[in-house]
Amino acid sequence: MSKGLISREDDYSQWYNELVAKADLAEHSAVRGCMVIKPYGFAIWEKMQAVLDQMFKDTGHSNAYFPLFIPKSFFSKEASHVEGFATECAVVTHYRLKNDGKGNIVVDQDAKLEEELIVRPTSETIIWNTYKGWIQSYRDLPILVNQWANVVRWEMRTRLFLRTAEFLWQEGHTAHATAQEAIEETERMLEVYAQFAENWMAMPVVRGRKTASERFAGAVDTYCIEALMQDGKALQAGTSHFLGQNFAKAFDVKFAGKDGKLDHVWATSWGVSTRLIGGMIMAHSDDSGLVLPPKLAPIQVVIIPIYKTEMEFDQISSIAKDLVGQLKKKNIAVKYDDRDSQRPGYKFAEYEMKGVPVRLTIGGRDLENGTVEIARRDTKEKQTISREHVDQFIVELLDDIQVTIYNKALKFREQNTRKVDSYAEFKRVLDEHPGFILAHWDGTPETEKQIKDETKATIRCIPLNSEQEVGQCMVTGKPSSQRVLFARAY
Amino acid sequence: MSKGLISREDDYSQWYNELVAKADLAEHSAVRGCMVIKPYGFAIWEKMQAVLDQMFKDTGHSNAYFPLFIPKSFFSKEASHVEGFATECAVVTHYRLKNDGKGNIVVDQDAKLEEELIVRPTSETIIWNTYKGWIQSYRDLPILVNQWANVVRWEMRTRLFLRTAEFLWQEGHTAHATAQEAIEETERMLEVYAQFAENWMAMPVVRGRKTASERFAGAVDTYCIEALMQDGKALQAGTSHFLGQNFAKAFDVKFAGKDGKLDHVWATSWGVSTRLIGGMIMAHSDDSGLVLPPKLAPIQVVIIPIYKTEMEFDQISSIAKDLVGQLKKKNIAVKYDDRDSQRPGYKFAEYEMKGVPVRLTIGGRDLENGTVEIARRDTKEKQTISREHVDQFIVELLDDIQVTIYNKALKFREQNTRKVDSYAEFKRVLDEHPGFILAHWDGTPETEKQIKDETKATIRCIPLNSEQEVGQCMVTGKPSSQRVLFARAY
Repeated sequence: MSKGLISREDDYSQWYNELVAKADLAEHSAVRGCMVIKPYGFAIWEKMQAVLDQMFKDTGHSNAYFPLFIPKSFFSKEASHVEGFATECAVVTHYRLKNDGKGNIVVDQDAKLEEELIVRPTSETIIWNTYKGWIQSYRDLPILVNQWANVVRWEMRTRLFLRTAEFLWQEGHTAHATAQEAIEETERMLEVYAQFAENWMAMPVVRGRKTASERFAGAVDTYCIEALMQDGKALQAGTSHFLGQNFAKAFDVKFAGKDGKLDHVWATSWGVSTRLIGGMIMAHSDDSGLVLPPKLAPIQVVIIPIYKTEMEFDQISSIAKDLVGQLKKKNIAVKYDDRDSQRPGYKFAEYEMKGVPVRLTIGGRDLENGTVEIARRDTKEKQTISREHVDQFIVELLDDIQVTIYNKALKFREQNTRKVDSYAEFKRVLDEHPGFILAHWDGTPETEKQIKDETKATIRCIPLNSEQEVGQCMVTGKPSSQRVLFARAY
Repeated sequence: MSKGLISREDDYSQWYNELVAKADLAEHSAVRGCMVIKPYGFAIWEKMQAVLDQMFKDTGHSNAYFPLFIPKSFFSKEASHVEGFATECAVVTHYRLKNDGKGNIVVDQDAKLEEELIVRPTSETIIWNTYKGWIQSYRDLPILVNQWANVVRWEMRTRLFLRTAEFLWQEGHTAHATAQEAIEETERMLEVYAQFAENWMAMPVVRGRKTASERFAGAVDTYCIEALMQDGKALQAGTSHFLGQNFAKAFDVKFAGKDGKLDHVWATSWGVSTRLIGGMIMAHSDDSGLVLPPKLAPIQVVIIPIYKTEMEFDQISSIAKDLVGQLKKKNIAVKYDDRDSQRPGYKFAEYEMKGVPVRLTIGGRDLENGTVEIARRDTKEKQTISREHVDQFIVELLDDIQVTIYNKALKFREQNTRKVDSYAEFKRVLDEHPGFILAHWDGTPETEKQIKDETKATIRCIPLNSEQEVGQCMVTGKPSSQRVLFARAY
């Protein structure tokens, strides 16, 4: 194990970068802006995928797969959509390489595409062009489809997991007969994301709607979940869009209702990405390394033997293997690290860095006493317990860690969410106590832009179900009926 | 349900195309050569993925993710590799679109990449460039990594699942300290593929090695599994490559052995793709539609009510829902189709087309008699049985169907594998009895090419563990020590 991390306090950004590297989660690739997700990082993504996929299926969705490439002309069909994505598109223009005769591999200029293809930054256009062939009547609706895929958005400033040119995500694309049904779907999927963030990632989120200027390009309404990171910056963790009839109109997708009348189809789309991994890291981890919620940890329990003699090692291994069997029966992901090449201290540091929630050690004294030592990663508390019923003890401990880190993150958010009533105070709080700020805003994009330009803070969302409160915009003094959520954001 | 399929005998190729469309598996997209995999087709792929993924993990592999894009210069580093893939590469040259001021969206020529990026056709180069950073000593080996991904090979003539410009696959990439270990890995993964094909897809395969001219570009040795389709053409269903030190040398990846000496790392790669779905369709299906092996069928049992009155419907539904519960307890994927909008005959045709292995109907007479009618898709046999223990009956029936269709495919292959000793007979058999042909070959690429040019038949593989037999090449009369497997192929 290389030495530890810089502290969050000294340099949060550097701490994050070091942590991603030292916990073996991901690295920058040789391709500008693209990341390599390493096996340990990918194992977290696989756990996330499995849970989300089941949640999507439980809400009636099926998976499908649509092309990576989108003809340029499709992009142009929905005006605000192309405006939103045009500046960050990877464009395929040729389909062949050749040897130039001097030993160099060059692009074959004879193999130029008639129409350029865009590497999908999101798939609304190709999917709605496809849905045109799938939908004739109300009987064909709703269509409830999800896709797990890679997408590319040519970002200039990248950070592993948080912002990369290529990332992995899922994108749901649904088609409905009525606006009401589509809005319900949009809200349902936002709630699925919120439940996932809170119950699985142990990351509390604010559910809300974006302002017009922060909406998805092509959406009528964008819902989001916003989480607070330990440095007081916000992270948009998932979005769910009510697309109205915008894409149906752009691609001429109509259906015959029960009354035989033709109408354009109503749409939603919703997505979360590998960015969630970045959010989960930043929500819980500490200066010793990752802290993972047990429900999404690739390894939930690691067993480490501490021995002096081969005989001791054999005795410990026998007990450890028995424990592995017991824990597996309880569906716990357990690893027995019996490597002889590394000392226990090295292993302790390694699993601490990797955020394994529970460490179980067995040493010579434990052999004598019939005990094991259990250390939890989140609080670093240790205790020695009897080997009997250790499986049940660990089941409960994992649950407790899950709840504890959620509550810790929730408390952090509560302590760092402030109500502010003047613009001067807003600026002061932003600098002195980074976090969420609830303030009144007059509802205009002009004021929103002014605040963003002057403070780098954005309206993260207009919280759902928040209390209505008569107030005055902190900048213009115009009337406002509820506070909105501000923060500087990733 | 639209009307049935053309028969296999009348037009096998057209039959396949109609079947893929009518069973709702996939369709051509608006992007040349790229397919849309529809929910029912994708559900088959998900089942395949789940099984294969577990098999990979059981053999010690982890998943990871590498970039979609490969810098052009990486491609040029392994000479035969670039030669193999250069003519079918999608090339990204720009990273931005813009509005040309006349309302057209055009490629922004100011956003030209310094170095073109290739959309991965396979990932050896980007992965070995990455492994260089991961490997210093023998302690870092082996690396056993797999990736589930989309890849692009610019094919001019495409067929859904069998040959498309973009397809989904997995690619394993492993790194080893010795040639022997890498060869064992290559063979191990070939056997994983063979077991999957035979035990899950119910598709018998010949395990073998490719000739030098059919090897993967960059491989020292390519192993493959070859299956026989119902039209007598062969399908390469999976490949496993021993790459020697070719990529380690191209990317300068060395490790220090226990003795401290530096040596280049040994490599393998292995992959199967959505092509397997095409193979499975062609191996088993008939003129009424798909026939799916129960172990990979998204729906294993469909229950259809036949009723005259609402009261009858309610009684049947109550029984059906009880059966659904019983079958789910046995881990059977069951669907109760209680749509009132379609008549039973329509539903029968639909599930026949979609290859659902078992259909269970409950009608008025069944209510009286305490029975259900069970129809199996493969043989179309029907029988009426008591409702008691229907769950156990179906468990056994599904097993029986799995075995029956495997045996049927095996028998078909045996009947269509012929030993041939002269070139004249070879040509006659090829035309009159399409299938596998075992014949002697002199081992030269020249003779292989002559046969291919004159007959369109290729050497599918040099079968593993096949009997050694002194013979003479059917074309040149030169000596040969074993028969090789010929066929026309997909």
